[in-house]
Amino acid sequence: MNISIIIAHPLRSSFNHAIGKTLVESINQQAHSVRCHDLYEENFPPALPPQEVPRGAPLPDMVQTHCRELAEADGIIVIHPNWWGMPPAIMKGWIDRVFRPGIAYEFIEGDSGEGIPKGLLKAQFALVLNTSNTTPEREEKEFGDPLETLWKNCIFGLCGVPVFRRRTFSIMVASTKGQRADWLDEARNLAAHLISEK
Amino acid sequence: MNISIIIAHPLRSSFNHAIGKTLVESINQQAHSVRCHDLYEENFPPALPPQEVPRGAPLPDMVQTHCRELAEADGIIVIHPNWWGMPPAIMKGWIDRVFRPGIAYEFIEGDSGEGIPKGLLKAQFALVLNTSNTTPEREEKEFGDPLETLWKNCIFGLCGVPVFRRRTFSIMVASTKGQRADWLDEARNLAAHLISEK
Repeated sequence: MNISIIIAHPLRSSFNHAIGKTLVESINQQAHSVRCHDLYEENFPPALPPQEVPRGAPLPDMVQTHCRELAEADGIIVIHPNWWGMPPAIMKGWIDRVFRPGIAYEFIEGDSGEGIPKGLLKAQFALVLNTSNTTPEREEKEFGDPLETLWKNCIFGLCGVPVFRRRTFSIMVASTKGQRADWLDEARNLAAHLISEK
Repeated sequence: MNISIIIAHPLRSSFNHAIGKTLVESINQQAHSVRCHDLYEENFPPALPPQEVPRGAPLPDMVQTHCRELAEADGIIVIHPNWWGMPPAIMKGWIDRVFRPGIAYEFIEGDSGEGIPKGLLKAQFALVLNTSNTTPEREEKEFGDPLETLWKNCIFGLCGVPVFRRRTFSIMVASTKGQRADWLDEARNLAAHLISEK
């Protein structure tokens, strides 16, 4: 299986990076192929440029690589902090530029774009791992936990990924070393479970 | 009154830009001060860099200007297309970098960041104008219209802006010239109404 991992956090010392490292190691041990992208590390340019708007537009190598890997992934794991109910801008840019028509979804022929798109991704699962400094109760009650519908329905559901799991680790700033170790175990188990089910 | 307008769309010929132009002209005629930023035009770098994470970090001039104008605004108008239930990455970056602690919100002293923030913006209203190629029914039913809670609760509510209005113009790709002219009138009226109420 090809597993793609995408991480977005500006600090390499972040817990998000610790999750990524943990997952790369454990998935490699299961003899699966892991492709891991640290979007900050590779300095991914987030803004979709005008010339990439048209369908079939020529793409820079970096974006082409991301598109190919997204299309080839059997499982997709994204790791990012909850910033304003959304991913950091650099990951929003990865979505804007990589989840292209013809790669992640397509409109039915003859439809001018206002119809219902068909998902094209072959990935069997998506796992979203978030960190947050808001309690789950407040996130749900005050904000409606928008990351859930964003990743589940707007993105992976629309693109045809049948199995979706998400876990938010909070409250990060108040967490203990032991709690963070448990969270890494939990992330490892979540990924292993999804991979073994396929 | 100081009105800040922020636009994010990669194509200058977009309807988003037409809305921005219409609002700048009509608000100027009402003898209010308008500051309008086209984030693509000014090539706003979206990714929050590691060195801007700490509270009180030195900021580049462009970000400082945005922070000052956000703090000074009596009304804030944002204009962008609905991309995956979120703003384009360039506007997500404007949020990540400009809505800083000490500018847009703050935590109560002694709180290490896990508490409930207090809004600092003095703006009396926020108006969000979106374009979309999804019907309102599908947006609500399939996706839960996440832009509503993102802007209303996660962003402007948290930052203390008391009045919030949002309007999505859809379906853009199937719209007629007459419909778009009506939508510009509607945008103009929405802004005029919010400004006159203050």
